[in-house]
Amino acid sequence: MTGPIVVINPNSNQVVTDGLSGALSAFTLQGGPKIECLTLNEGPFGIESQRDSDSVILPLATLVQSRPDAAAFVIACYSDPGLDTCRSVVPQPVFGIQESGVLTAMARADRFGIIALADGSIPRHRRYMARMQVLDRLAGEIALNMSVDDSARGEGTYARLVEAGTTLKAHGAGVVILGCAGMARHRRPLEAELGIPVIDPVQAAVTMALGALLAG
Amino acid sequence: MTGPIVVINPNSNQVVTDGLSGALSAFTLQGGPKIECLTLNEGPFGIESQRDSDSVILPLATLVQSRPDAAAFVIACYSDPGLDTCRSVVPQPVFGIQESGVLTAMARADRFGIIALADGSIPRHRRYMARMQVLDRLAGEIALNMSVDDSARGEGTYARLVEAGTTLKAHGAGVVILGCAGMARHRRPLEAELGIPVIDPVQAAVTMALGALLAG
Amino acid sequence: MTGPIVVINPNSNQVVTDGLSGALSAFTLQGGPKIECLTLNEGPFGIESQRDSDSVILPLATLVQSRPDAAAFVIACYSDPGLDTCRSVVPQPVFGIQESGVLTAMARADRFGIIALADGSIPRHRRYMARMQVLDRLAGEIALNMSVDDSARGEGTYARLVEAGTTLKAHGAGVVILGCAGMARHRRPLEAELGIPVIDPVQAAVTMALGALLAG
Amino acid sequence: MTGPIVVINPNSNQVVTDGLSGALSAFTLQGGPKIECLTLNEGPFGIESQRDSDSVILPLATLVQSRPDAAAFVIACYSDPGLDTCRSVVPQPVFGIQESGVLTAMARADRFGIIALADGSIPRHRRYMARMQVLDRLAGEIALNMSVDDSARGEGTYARLVEAGTTLKAHGAGVVILGCAGMARHRRPLEAELGIPVIDPVQAAVTMALGALLAG
Amino acid sequence: MTGPIVVINPNSNQVVTDGLSGALSAFTLQGGPKIECLTLNEGPFGIESQRDSDSVILPLATLVQSRPDAAAFVIACYSDPGLDTCRSVVPQPVFGIQESGVLTAMARADRFGIIALADGSIPRHRRYMARMQVLDRLAGEIALNMSVDDSARGEGTYARLVEAGTTLKAHGAGVVILGCAGMARHRRPLEAELGIPVIDPVQAAVTMALGALLAG
Amino acid sequence: MTGPIVVINPNSNQVVTDGLSGALSAFTLQGGPKIECLTLNEGPFGIESQRDSDSVILPLATLVQSRPDAAAFVIACYSDPGLDTCRSVVPQPVFGIQESGVLTAMARADRFGIIALADGSIPRHRRYMARMQVLDRLAGEIALNMSVDDSARGEGTYARLVEAGTTLKAHGAGVVILGCAGMARHRRPLEAELGIPVIDPVQAAVTMALGALLAG
Repeated sequence: MTGPIVVINPNSNQVVTDGLSGALSAFTLQGGPKIECLTLNEGPFGIESQRDSDSVILPLATLVQSRPDAAAFVIACYSDPGLDTCRSVVPQPVFGIQESGVLTAMARADRFGIIALADGSIPRHRRYMARMQVLDRLAGEIALNMSVDDSARGEGTYARLVEAGTTLKAHGAGVVILGCAGMARHRRPLEAELGIPVIDPVQAAVTMALGALLAG
Repeated sequence: MTGPIVVINPNSNQVVTDGLSGALSAFTLQGGPKIECLTLNEGPFGIESQRDSDSVILPLATLVQSRPDAAAFVIACYSDPGLDTCRSVVPQPVFGIQESGVLTAMARADRFGIIALADGSIPRHRRYMARMQVLDRLAGEIALNMSVDDSARGEGTYARLVEAGTTLKAHGAGVVILGCAGMARHRRPLEAELGIPVIDPVQAAVTMALGALLAG
Repeated sequence: MTGPIVVINPNSNQVVTDGLSGALSAFTLQGGPKIECLTLNEGPFGIESQRDSDSVILPLATLVQSRPDAAAFVIACYSDPGLDTCRSVVPQPVFGIQESGVLTAMARADRFGIIALADGSIPRHRRYMARMQVLDRLAGEIALNMSVDDSARGEGTYARLVEAGTTLKAHGAGVVILGCAGMARHRRPLEAELGIPVIDPVQAAVTMALGALLAG
Repeated sequence: MTGPIVVINPNSNQVVTDGLSGALSAFTLQGGPKIECLTLNEGPFGIESQRDSDSVILPLATLVQSRPDAAAFVIACYSDPGLDTCRSVVPQPVFGIQESGVLTAMARADRFGIIALADGSIPRHRRYMARMQVLDRLAGEIALNMSVDDSARGEGTYARLVEAGTTLKAHGAGVVILGCAGMARHRRPLEAELGIPVIDPVQAAVTMALGALLAG
Repeated sequence: MTGPIVVINPNSNQVVTDGLSGALSAFTLQGGPKIECLTLNEGPFGIESQRDSDSVILPLATLVQSRPDAAAFVIACYSDPGLDTCRSVVPQPVFGIQESGVLTAMARADRFGIIALADGSIPRHRRYMARMQVLDRLAGEIALNMSVDDSARGEGTYARLVEAGTTLKAHGAGVVILGCAGMARHRRPLEAELGIPVIDPVQAAVTMALGALLAG
Repeated sequence: MTGPIVVINPNSNQVVTDGLSGALSAFTLQGGPKIECLTLNEGPFGIESQRDSDSVILPLATLVQSRPDAAAFVIACYSDPGLDTCRSVVPQPVFGIQESGVLTAMARADRFGIIALADGSIPRHRRYMARMQVLDRLAGEIALNMSVDDSARGEGTYARLVEAGTTLKAHGAGVVILGCAGMARHRRPLEAELGIPVIDPVQAAVTMALGALLAG
């Protein structure tokens, strides 16, 4: 277990990558794998459309192939772009944050809710959960309708997260997933306020990677 | 994050508990939570029937309630006995190994296979996966038809694991779950031999617990 | 067909057991099996939590094993506690009232609604219906938020049943299940008022038992 | 509860109707509803095709409308012809034997198997179970490939039932449904031989009707 | 490809048949199959109940058998009456408009909405979609509560279609199906107004037939 | 309806494009839309891996955007690469051949079988059908294990298609889909030999496009 867990932010917004590093600082333990957060320079500034998402697949594949030293990869965009291709071109385990976030939530409650950034991404998320065959566990999904950049910086984000989480809980969600890579710092206070677990999907994916590596 | 992850072996076979400790040694990292493996003294020597499984629910609830110092619990029996009750009586997160094992497998491949100890437990597992609404991802389940004790000690176990895993792979499994708490030492060689990920469910549940604690 | 159908009230409230006897009086026919309603003395006064439900499993198993003279058993608690274990320890057929109530409702309309006593039991019911793989037929579930004892005695129960049933009908339910063992006396007037079938789950389970015995 | 349960054999083979009467003799109890078995004279000699099945819908509707004295109806053909139409034209409950047989089997085991008369009816049965949304509970269906008349009279029927039931059990069926109205006399010996419940669907439907009437 | 596509209006309202001819005029191309719209004289004036729907099955079977010159058939009633029987008695392909409409909609968006004529037909449609195993793709169904004849002639139909379509879109429908054979002339303006595809099911079925014939 | 249906072969093998033109010649009717088959020059010679499939998404998006004169697009690769992105960047309808092929097959029989080129593509197809939520209708999928180029040219292809189709039919398929863009010339003889419909997915998608255009 000599190599790091390489977490790739597929957009080119370094603020988001720095946020990932911060959100993951607690996951680097002595004797455990290092966690290295990278920005995909070829990526768009924010991944907000299907085309944005598809545009990073080949650069991601090239990037993972360039890192034979890595022990595992995490693709840190909630659309899980390039997950299938990356898995097919490198031998290391590759984790997507939507996939990991949803599966981790399913270990905490019967039904999960999702807080998305934008309404436009909800159908994309649904298609992905249909593919995962987990839609029956979905209590609902609500969008903040903010950009990735705004949600990472903005003032009003937390209040809107509380509102969305409260609504999801009323619709039967026993756990809430932050449906974006940039909202980790709100996880703990939101969990305390809602009284149910809140999952940061990047942390969930890094945890999955950590487990795979610690198992040897 | 001061408390340990308490892993409870609900049967009273100390050999199994010791095996759990061994399988989890790599998961204790400096700066991370301690992992404490306990034997449920009130449990039967092996949990092989539905009644055995149900018989440990109340003792498990009592045990988890007696450990307010714990940060999280793992119930280390593949039937996930008492998971709902334990969750309802303590505020800490409680993880079941079947639930965690299946969800972790779902992050590694489209369809998973399970190697059970005995044919008699397969319907119980199926009912549980039905409840989880994940049966559509199941490629198949095959039993070794060995006792918990035999599988933990016996010589021929590994050969039978390889045979079962090979069959599951031929039936479309892209990942295999060891459907029992006592087979962890075979995980790594079996994974190497089959060429697809092999999940030890206790490690999977401890990983989930670790992730919940590291997230704060 | 010499033995009785033994209907077990797993809580220790004799008022509930007496109510069962009353609700089943019409089901005892000359030449048919006797119906014997028992109180599980070891049970809690009311089964209102997951732990309450799990606490009666072993006593139920012991009780059914003590009655080799019985022809069939009905476990008269809507959580169907101990159903799997009881089935595994005696040769006679054992019926759960949730399972029987849901299946009987499915013979009367495309989608069924459920009136629960308390919000807290709805997730438990959902998990059970997930296990039964019948959630696609559920139109909705609404709780009265009354205790078992109140619902059996209380004055305002009927008005609240009508309100809940009317809402379920508006949500597409073509049949309504009384999601509790103590509401049978309201079945007939509620059915007349709603204009759709209303299922008492204890009657449904006793009917299933009766059918199994009459078939020989 | 003054009216009888009217059981309608939608084919015009009186031997089959007489068999129904025999199979149901034990279901007539003193103080309970009478059971009256009728032959639909307009029906074909055997219902073996989709067209045969559809040809009896209107005559069935006319027949049920001509019996306002009946308390409930059972349509005794495993294709459940005319069930929707009959339900829509009379106020009494109408039970189909496929629907009742499948639901009754689901109260006895996790997965059910079906023994059909002919391969040609299996897709029709599957479509119906798809409509019922219960296909996930089906372990398998095997055809005897005999005519209704042969199966009712023939010598070799029982041996072929045992063979089919044994195969279904090996495929995971915990209960077997006789997928035809004419095989009731084999139910009890087959159940004894297989060691798992065997459901006669006509008895199952009459039981459902009995329960609805006894409940008042 | 010498024979025509025979489109059968199973009700005896010639206005509806003429409307079909009009809606399909654009589908007759030089060198392609002719399209012949027939009225089923034995049919009721409007198919508004389950009995109405079942009443046309045998006449439809007789009609399709009388046309060995046809290359394909379309049954132009949204209940798809007689589809199974017609398919079983003639060698030509037979298309139902509900089936074709739903499948065509599924090629245009993740979730579809349906505008029905009457509330009473919604459960019938749901049973049919359950049988097709496509209910997970349904966003919702809303009824105009107008008769076939009214909807074909009436003034206010279009305004109510817009209202229903707008509601369905708000509920997640990415495509809307006109759940009746008589609303084709509203298809194009409704599609323009809603901004999402609107499917006329008769056109969808004729398209399926055309494809089967052009493929040779 | 002035613009053509533009059918894009996303691989750069002109032999395949020419085959598409041939397979579609019968679909160009006088008065109907023209059909124009294009080769995506940026595509790989054959699309045989996930990466190959993902590599054509952006070029496909660029190509469809460059053709505002087109009335509809068909992406003629069975992996349906770029379908979501193309739909999001142009106003015209865009059809995928896997999606159209599966939906068209569902209009012909209860369960469909698929003949794939290579074992490696089966999991990709399954993921896609999971996303479409149609896996319950799949009878099976069998691979020829030939390259696109071989299957388009090779001598033994037809014999292997017959063998695969016969096996799928034995597994319950009532219709077979050719799971590749290059096997259209075998469709008609295979259909005659198997005695059940055989769907060429490119023809299915062009039919869907034709229907959308003829409806206006």
